[in-house]
This record gives sequence, structure tokens and C-alpha cells, in this order.
Amino acid sequence: MQTLPASHETKVATPDHDVLDVVAQRWSPRAFADRPVEPEKIRRMLEAARWTMSSYNEQPWRYLVAARDRDPDAYERLLGCLTEGNQSWAQNAPVLMMSFYKTAFSGNDQPNRCAPHDVGAASAAMTLQATEMGLFVHQMAGIQPDVVRSTYDVPDGFEPMAGVAVGYLGDPEMLSDGQQASETEPRTRKSLDEFVFQGGWGEPSPLLKTA
Amino acid sequence: MQTLPASHETKVATPDHDVLDVVAQRWSPRAFADRPVEPEKIRRMLEAARWTMSSYNEQPWRYLVAARDRDPDAYERLLGCLTEGNQSWAQNAPVLMMSFYKTAFSGNDQPNRCAPHDVGAASAAMTLQATEMGLFVHQMAGIQPDVVRSTYDVPDGFEPMAGVAVGYLGDPEMLSDGQQASETEPRTRKSLDEFVFQGGWGEPSPLLKTA
Repeated sequence: MQTLPASHETKVATPDHDVLDVVAQRWSPRAFADRPVEPEKIRRMLEAARWTMSSYNEQPWRYLVAARDRDPDAYERLLGCLTEGNQSWAQNAPVLMMSFYKTAFSGNDQPNRCAPHDVGAASAAMTLQATEMGLFVHQMAGIQPDVVRSTYDVPDGFEPMAGVAVGYLGDPEMLSDGQQASETEPRTRKSLDEFVFQGGWGEPSPLLKTA
Repeated sequence: MQTLPASHETKVATPDHDVLDVVAQRWSPRAFADRPVEPEKIRRMLEAARWTMSSYNEQPWRYLVAARDRDPDAYERLLGCLTEGNQSWAQNAPVLMMSFYKTAFSGNDQPNRCAPHDVGAASAAMTLQATEMGLFVHQMAGIQPDVVRSTYDVPDGFEPMAGVAVGYLGDPEMLSDGQQASETEPRTRKSLDEFVFQGGWGEPSPLLKTA
């Protein structure tokens, strides 16, 4: 795994407990370098998604993928599915993806409550795989679902989930002032006792105590 | 990371493209060893979840956690929230969790469409972290949401997502015949061209071609 340039050291997590390097070093940039992503690295990202767990092994995830250097038209179509705000910086990313989930189980056509959860898991595996290879991923809730549906003729039973920008780290100077600031601000998170409970809701788990 | 015992070598993924060891070696067992999980390993799992990406950094995930050796009553309560089918084997796991998501953004109380996706991502990071430490995780869609709500007085605005069984690998002999078979069956997945598209829905991406 590559180490972050000094300008971005603030982005390395400051975990209270040791975690995988790929977890600590992953973050979501808006500035991407003008450098294509090797197709084999894209395949390895998708392969990591492929082996993720899912309810009844349904594998409800689907991905649309477009690399600007390989298929500029496909890239522009995918870019157009993002919100304008996200297009402003995602157009720097050499690779874009869109994740989807299948709303029902293939076996019995019953609703799959866990499908969005499972595509989130697959995209997380993909993102950590990318981090291992020196790539950065920025997932986007800000998509235009209607544009996605009309652009790709998405069949009933599939829902657009999230946009995904992929590439190597770029110079924050390419961004607007507000976006630049977020490129170097430290990552912040709730503390464990704010989201891990034991006996009842809101009661921090004694397991969190290290003393 | 520990390597799998020979009896379970069939569970190592056979990826078409190189992936992280923790991705290849992760799978979801039903047989767990009668061995407690070190609290620091539980903390490291939750820490990995903590640093996951989420829409607007909302961090919509919450986890209830119970270790049988530390708090048997809390463990039994959590076990009782699973479906009977899952209780039959999850009772072998020394640690149980339940994941939840917050349905609305904290900042503006608007619905957070991505919350289930984001808790899925956090639970995936947690699972890969566990794999790195020699642990195994089996996530369960089969929970009893009403029992979860009444047992823990879950506030409005939070939804139970999935049960999580955690522990070291156990002897499949402890399981029923049907469950035993699934402990050693090879993991199977769709091929990449079944879920990765480019120009239109269902059209495999040329990026998948290695030739």
C-alpha cells in the first residue's frame, strides 16, 4: 500500500484501537490526478465486491463502470447521472461507477430487506481493496435516480444506490475554496461509546473499557 | 492473519483477480469454538466500523454487543432477538451483536436513503478487521425486529438491521447435518460479467476483458 503524501497526512485516521492500514488510510477525496486507472486494478476492486457476504448469498449488487480513457462517451453518460454539485469535482476522477441493488430475492421474488445493506458491504470491500492498491474512492449519495433510469433503461426491480468516483490522489488546487478545505481537514468520527451499546439502548458497553 | 485449517480450505475464495487476504479468507461459519473473544479484538472490530465512510458523515450505524463470558444475561437477551433457526447455531458464538441504522439525518431530520447501505459498509469493515485477527463473523438477516424493539426499548428513528455472530472457528460436528454441509461447501459467486455493466444495463464492461 502506498503512503499518503505529507499534504494529506491529516487524513489518516487516529484510531483508538489498531485497525487495518486500509481502514486507517481510506478517505474520500474530491481532487483526483489526471492519471488513468489500470484496468486490472478496476477488476480487482470489483472482485473484492464479488466475494462479499450477502443475505442468502443473493449478491444483490450491480455496478455500472466507465473509465474516461477507455470510453469517453460512457464516462460522460455516467457523469451526467450525478447531481450537479457532485459533477463539479467528480469530473476529475478517471473512473466512475454507479451501484444498484436488486430489490427482491431471485429465488422467491420476496422483498430483500437487506439489499441496500449488502451493496453497502460490497462497496466497502471494493473501497478497501482500492486503498490497498493506492487508489482513492469517493462514494456519492448525490445521484439523479430518474436520469440513471432513463440513461440506462434500468429494469424494474433494481434501484440506483450510489455514485462512485475512483482514481489517484490529485492536487487540491483544482478544487473550489470550500472543497479544498475538506481535502485536508482531519477525519472526525463519533466515539465508540456513542454508537456501541450493551444492556439497553444508549448504555455504553463495558466491553469498551480498556482499563 | 491466521490461515484456515485444512478442513476448511474449501472456504478460501478462488478469485479471478487478486484481492486482499482478508477478502479471500472471510466466510460465514455456523460452528464456533468454545473460546471467548478478547475484548480488545471486539474494540478493534468496532473501531474499524467507526472509520467507515457514510453519507454526509452521518455515521448512521449503531451496535448492540454482548459477550457471553462477560455478561451472560445480556448475551441471552440478544440471542432471543434472532429467529429460531439462527438461534440454533448462533448460540455457539461467544459474541453476538445487532446492527441498527438511524433513518434520518441528524442535521435536518430528512430521511437518509443511504443509511442501510452505510451500516452495511461499516459491518463489512468490521468483518474484514475480524478476519485479520483470526475471527469469523456471520451476519444474519433473520432477526425478530419486534422482539429487538421491546427488549431494548429502541427509540423511534432507529431500525434493527442485522444480527452478527462473532467467534473463532469451531468443529462442524456440533451442527445439524444440513448445517454441517454448508460449513465446507466452496463459496460460490456470480461472475463479474453478471453484475458489472458499462454502456447499458446487462452489457458487460470491456474493462473486464483481460486479454
